[in-house]
Amino acid sequence: VDRALITFLSDFGYTDEFVGVCHGVIAVRCSQARVIDITHGILRHDIRAGALLLRAALAYMPAGVHLAVVDPGVGLERSRRAVALLTRKRGDLLVGPDNGLLWPAAELFGGVVEAVDIGGSHERLEPVSATFHGRDVFAPVAAALACGEPPAVVGQTVAIEELTRLTLARAHVQDRALRVRVLQIDGFGNLSLDASTEQLAQLGVLPGASLEVQPVGRVGAAARYESTFGEVAPGELLLHKDSRQMMALAVNQGEASARLQVGAGDELILRLR
Amino acid sequence: VDRALITFLSDFGYTDEFVGVCHGVIAVRCSQARVIDITHGILRHDIRAGALLLRAALAYMPAGVHLAVVDPGVGLERSRRAVALLTRKRGDLLVGPDNGLLWPAAELFGGVVEAVDIGGSHERLEPVSATFHGRDVFAPVAAALACGEPPAVVGQTVAIEELTRLTLARAHVQDRALRVRVLQIDGFGNLSLDASTEQLAQLGVLPGASLEVQPVGRVGAAARYESTFGEVAPGELLLHKDSRQMMALAVNQGEASARLQVGAGDELILRLR
Amino acid sequence: VDRALITFLSDFGYTDEFVGVCHGVIAVRCSQARVIDITHGILRHDIRAGALLLRAALAYMPAGVHLAVVDPGVGLERSRRAVALLTRKRGDLLVGPDNGLLWPAAELFGGVVEAVDIGGSHERLEPVSATFHGRDVFAPVAAALACGEPPAVVGQTVAIEELTRLTLARAHVQDRALRVRVLQIDGFGNLSLDASTEQLAQLGVLPGASLEVQPVGRVGAAARYESTFGEVAPGELLLHKDSRQMMALAVNQGEASARLQVGAGDELILRLR
Repeated sequence: VDRALITFLSDFGYTDEFVGVCHGVIAVRCSQARVIDITHGILRHDIRAGALLLRAALAYMPAGVHLAVVDPGVGLERSRRAVALLTRKRGDLLVGPDNGLLWPAAELFGGVVEAVDIGGSHERLEPVSATFHGRDVFAPVAAALACGEPPAVVGQTVAIEELTRLTLARAHVQDRALRVRVLQIDGFGNLSLDASTEQLAQLGVLPGASLEVQPVGRVGAAARYESTFGEVAPGELLLHKDSRQMMALAVNQGEASARLQVGAGDELILRLR
Repeated sequence: VDRALITFLSDFGYTDEFVGVCHGVIAVRCSQARVIDITHGILRHDIRAGALLLRAALAYMPAGVHLAVVDPGVGLERSRRAVALLTRKRGDLLVGPDNGLLWPAAELFGGVVEAVDIGGSHERLEPVSATFHGRDVFAPVAAALACGEPPAVVGQTVAIEELTRLTLARAHVQDRALRVRVLQIDGFGNLSLDASTEQLAQLGVLPGASLEVQPVGRVGAAARYESTFGEVAPGELLLHKDSRQMMALAVNQGEASARLQVGAGDELILRLR
Repeated sequence: VDRALITFLSDFGYTDEFVGVCHGVIAVRCSQARVIDITHGILRHDIRAGALLLRAALAYMPAGVHLAVVDPGVGLERSRRAVALLTRKRGDLLVGPDNGLLWPAAELFGGVVEAVDIGGSHERLEPVSATFHGRDVFAPVAAALACGEPPAVVGQTVAIEELTRLTLARAHVQDRALRVRVLQIDGFGNLSLDASTEQLAQLGVLPGASLEVQPVGRVGAAARYESTFGEVAPGELLLHKDSRQMMALAVNQGEASARLQVGAGDELILRLR
């Protein structure tokens, strides 16, 4: 594994120096590491959106160390664990808080084969601040791993069963309908849903089907389940498997978020028409 | 030409993983390529603004491969062509949708000497998604070119006359006035116009002139045509050739967009006072 | 000093091509230079916020050349000086406008040992535009320094006493209270204040103390001075030394900016309860 590559995702945003500082720490600790920023625009503290985008991005990244920080639990009295996870398929390493953020990506890579708690790592930047573990814990540990240190050296072994799990596709069938949640709205107004094609098939919703999409407690709209925008008319609502391989709602030449007046976290009911 | 350099412009924004994913694809396909991000903050689907900023940026970039994706036509039934263009002056290669986005940059580089359709390139990432050709078509082809593959190998020859053209300076004279359009508003509230100094000269508007700037259908404001902010009083409206070598409106220590209450795409009428 | 590293901070934002163009200029002039972006999201023309974040970031950066551009004075008739500053501790070089932006960072590095005016440097990109000195003056000079040119070659010596100074901690005691200003609001709603622990100690405000935080002219709120979020209840207001080593106000699991209804530049009065 070419560990000198580090990918980096966070909810730090672009107005502060936080992302740049983590790059600086990595450059100091492992100057040969190359860093690819995935995004730092995750909605603050939205672990599920972070997990979705991390998994989606890592499917296209070279093997290496993957640093991800969406960490609402930092600075609280009973802090979440900080971890580094060695995964099965390619030996990729995931570094971040143990709050579920890393779990879908670990599944993508065939599961975790070794887990270490890095909260007390000797690689930490001292003194460790109360709130910026990206700089003081996660970035220096990621740098050490990128420069070849083994996981067992940067942290204490944790039993894999103790790790926090997270399932993205948690939609559930109810009264011949599928109740889904909006995981993420992309910049084009498309809605990523926490539903799988298998769950839709249970309802008889197969490609080509007409369905109703109803924001909970409001009037529904008609949609078609197709594979591309081109198969519905401009302005029409489309259910499709998106480029992240997730079910998504889109409007041909429009914005599904505006059409349905929904935001991240909102629930929708999908049923066959 | 040092093709191991790739510059990258898009309207993907910073909240999704799309930009990072393209970086990942490039790192997988041509690990030695260095990527310089121009911007990913182009207004969604605004081909003209993308073309303006791409041309402005490429004037200052090293020779290499230039990847640009502002692509409202992706996923539609009758898709626009995807192309790679070899340009005359330095051998720079432009990669992106054939919707006019690349044309002003190609002119900057002395015109196109070879064009290939890369929509069916063997370098594509299979399966090609319906909507994310940045990841599945444009990035892998840019990577292949950066690693030295010739255009004729990554695509099918297209006649240069068939390429989609785009003219940025399309202002026109009408009743002794110049009707211009706002191409782009920068973060400082300055307005880039689709007008050239030549077009202004036709109206007798030369450096030092006083003129009226009128948003269509509204009351106009007085402006002066000068070369720097320092030549007008604080708060005064200034017409000048901006750092992109385009005509622009600015307010000394203020925001022209707020003063004139105009946005990208709005029309203005300029006349000598 | 490994001068081939350049860090870069500005208020250019992410919607224009300005940041990318500076990267391009650096790649043309010193192709081996590696650039780490600190942030380009500084509030437009906010020199104090830029100075705060620059100093905070540089504490974690490798030694090198540090390019910073927050430059409200560009393009005005009586322009501010453009400078490069050699600093004491590690030989870091600071490049930017002489408007105070670089001063706190210079202090962090032990002060300035050599200063040069680069406004007329032979390294400039000709013709120099009226408004984009980041591209035409600062970036090419930073690149020349990164490639090993000495300061005396890229500019004209300036007496160190003539440089513009800036003090970040300018809070002052008044009627047994400390009048502070909000320097910066981070993406999590935390407020950075221009006060030091020493200034608080003068009022008897020590860790563990209860205090009142009053936006000028409005009703105050109770806060506690603790070291971490975990020591106050969810929703409670906390005064603490933040990860930048600055005094800051935060709300456990909330946003201090929303709670106190204050923005950058607003004043607050802190007093012991």
